[in-house]
Amino acid sequence: MAWSLGRLGGSRFWSMALGCGSPRPRAWPPGPMAGRFCLTPLGGAGSGRTRGLGYGPGTAGAGVGGGGGARRAPWLVAGLAAGLAGVAAASLQHLARAEMVPRTEGASGVLGRADELALRCSSFMAQPVTALSELRARTGDMKTQMELLIMETQAQVCRALAQLDGGASFSVDRWERKEGGGGISCVLQDGHVFEKAGVSVSVVHGTLSEEATKQMRSRGKVLKTKNGQLAFSAMGVSSVIHPKNPHAPTFHFNYRYFEIEDADGNKQWWFGGGCDLTPTYLNQEDAVHFHKTLKDACDQHDPSLYPKFKKWCDDYFVIKHRGERRGIGGIFFDDLDSPSKEDVFHFVQSCARAVVPSYIPLVKKHCNDPFTPQEKQWQQLRRGRYVEFNLLYDRGTKFGLFTPGSRIESILMSLPLTARWEYMHAPSKNSKEAEILEVLHHPKDWVH
Amino acid sequence: MAWSLGRLGGSRFWSMALGCGSPRPRAWPPGPMAGRFCLTPLGGAGSGRTRGLGYGPGTAGAGVGGGGGARRAPWLVAGLAAGLAGVAAASLQHLARAEMVPRTEGASGVLGRADELALRCSSFMAQPVTALSELRARTGDMKTQMELLIMETQAQVCRALAQLDGGASFSVDRWERKEGGGGISCVLQDGHVFEKAGVSVSVVHGTLSEEATKQMRSRGKVLKTKNGQLAFSAMGVSSVIHPKNPHAPTFHFNYRYFEIEDADGNKQWWFGGGCDLTPTYLNQEDAVHFHKTLKDACDQHDPSLYPKFKKWCDDYFVIKHRGERRGIGGIFFDDLDSPSKEDVFHFVQSCARAVVPSYIPLVKKHCNDPFTPQEKQWQQLRRGRYVEFNLLYDRGTKFGLFTPGSRIESILMSLPLTARWEYMHAPSKNSKEAEILEVLHHPKDWVH
Repeated sequence: MAWSLGRLGGSRFWSMALGCGSPRPRAWPPGPMAGRFCLTPLGGAGSGRTRGLGYGPGTAGAGVGGGGGARRAPWLVAGLAAGLAGVAAASLQHLARAEMVPRTEGASGVLGRADELALRCSSFMAQPVTALSELRARTGDMKTQMELLIMETQAQVCRALAQLDGGASFSVDRWERKEGGGGISCVLQDGHVFEKAGVSVSVVHGTLSEEATKQMRSRGKVLKTKNGQLAFSAMGVSSVIHPKNPHAPTFHFNYRYFEIEDADGNKQWWFGGGCDLTPTYLNQEDAVHFHKTLKDACDQHDPSLYPKFKKWCDDYFVIKHRGERRGIGGIFFDDLDSPSKEDVFHFVQSCARAVVPSYIPLVKKHCNDPFTPQEKQWQQLRRGRYVEFNLLYDRGTKFGLFTPGSRIESILMSLPLTARWEYMHAPSKNSKEAEILEVLHHPKDWVH
Repeated sequence: MAWSLGRLGGSRFWSMALGCGSPRPRAWPPGPMAGRFCLTPLGGAGSGRTRGLGYGPGTAGAGVGGGGGARRAPWLVAGLAAGLAGVAAASLQHLARAEMVPRTEGASGVLGRADELALRCSSFMAQPVTALSELRARTGDMKTQMELLIMETQAQVCRALAQLDGGASFSVDRWERKEGGGGISCVLQDGHVFEKAGVSVSVVHGTLSEEATKQMRSRGKVLKTKNGQLAFSAMGVSSVIHPKNPHAPTFHFNYRYFEIEDADGNKQWWFGGGCDLTPTYLNQEDAVHFHKTLKDACDQHDPSLYPKFKKWCDDYFVIKHRGERRGIGGIFFDDLDSPSKEDVFHFVQSCARAVVPSYIPLVKKHCNDPFTPQEKQWQQLRRGRYVEFNLLYDRGTKFGLFTPGSRIESILMSLPLTARWEYMHAPSKNSKEAEILEVLHHPKDWVH
């Protein structure tokens, strides 16, 4: 089911989120939504600039490891200038204490000059959360580098998904956080290939209670607060993708960067993230491809990383009350703050660029596989388990939901479109359903 | 979909849960399952007694406020005797730290004599959790009274539901808790009228950590533990009923009784419970009928009870991150320990006996209402909200899931068969969907 204008037209949310006169969302690629557009004040000055939908399906899937080749974003119609060498910046979507307020950045004049930064940004799903002028002013800063990386990753993944789907559009939803920062949530729902695919970026900053900070660090370093508060900056890209075909696996990834400053002015930083695969049925070849791609990305930096982060992933994504993992794992890490900021960033960059090649080929391979109603039903039961993990155990989801003012829709976009719970369901022995359960109970090593 | 023997036949769970040679579950009423039976050792002595399925659909729906009129349970084939004046007993299904172990009670000889207790029990879905000999030995004790009340309530509700459904059978699942006690879970799934209906009884005892005890008391009295442990006894009946038709509301009820004994041998007891209605669409007449029935039950005891417990219900069943209630409320209370044990018991008895008349007429009225695919879809979205409440906020569910050794299937039988999550769904203004949302945001008084 594509977004119906009527339904969205009735939502105050959109018009506020987009800060525009029309209540209609942007959609990408246009497809049946080609006529949609939204007037958005692009900065205090040039208000009322048209945000048309310049991306056609033909430009989608620019692919892996590079943001080049895409058409220019329509919000970047004017020329550009100036130089920016560094790349990428960070966010944590789940942190998103968003409130829908009109955007009022002071970016006037930014679009009047052509520059490398603006050119780079032109392939993104929307302009970065941070004003171009600010990004340009702190070019070498890790926050700038990470914000650009997560924006680039979002664009690459959305492009690849939209091209593969060929049906439904991505809705692109820009929101601001009253306390500082904001985000961009892209969701494709009920497409040809995908049941639901969400890719969200957030870039937030402000002060955090000590307790909240602890939840963000799995090792729990002691941090000196000022009146119980810590200045923080957090950014990340987060995504969950549920294909329709039960033979195409569900996929999740999240890469994030944190900076905090304690009462003495000492700064700490760390990266976290990972990705994991949740197939409905086990396909050994797929599992090996997925883990091999991740291992290759890790091995570029240190051969000890993949085994460590693969185990961390197996240990984290556990549905404890069922005694089973939610999928066949991948990699997971948190509190990564050595050997150096640049080193860890380049590792995270490799991981982020492995997202598309690790996953998209698996969906391409299986999205037209024949399947039975029983296989679809087993997929729905596994979707139910996914919901259980996300609502009961996922730290990011819980942190987000329990933080007043969170943008709930961005946090819960990870939930599947549909799910099922049957009392006392148990697959019969030696069935394909029992085969995947066995792996969920006893995780395997897929590459050596 | 009816229980398939093949599916269940493959489950180790059943055979262990039932403690019988055959892995097949009992079903009630027989319908298409009429041929099923299970050999169950009814006590250490008369092992291998046949537990046939003696209930026919015609005997269902014995109705409100009384357990009489039902056919005798097949597990009670022999004669009976002796007297029992008191009624009813308690449990908390969610406490269920169940482990599937064979039943080894010493009830030999119990069925050799006709008595009033056994006659009363003959209308239950299964024999009580506590051995008849033990119940007979402590006739006047509140634990005996409450166990009989919850067993009676389970039978009344299951009978009414099965008669109304006319399609799928109740599976009756008896389980034991290794640490003490056990339970009986009755589930009807994918019937003509009901998508999923679960009615579970549990009667458990043993020792509880102080922390766990605190979770059981909303006011959190200070309790003196012995080596951090408290002797406890808990029992209750708990149920969630999801009809198929989007115009027939979802319903939940739970009545429970607790006893604890602190380090000094001081005993404390309390009752808790309530019931609440979750319609997909608002029907004023239904809402008034539901609340009026509850108010009448409360008013028999004290006119101050209904207003207090109605508000408590509105305050408890809140999906906090959405800022909305999960339904149109009902009554809710906890830690009820005055004016006297007998007084509170009689109040709880009135509430339990109001379950069928408050709810069943609403399903009867609407189960054949015509509905559109859009209405079905809105129901599925509301089911998603139900899942959010149960997994994120419900104290009983969380306590159960996080207690090692819990019987997960009995706890999660409250989840709907199917649910749906759409990103940024918002009903249009003045729609029927917006009407119910308005009430979920601003609870109303339905009776005065």
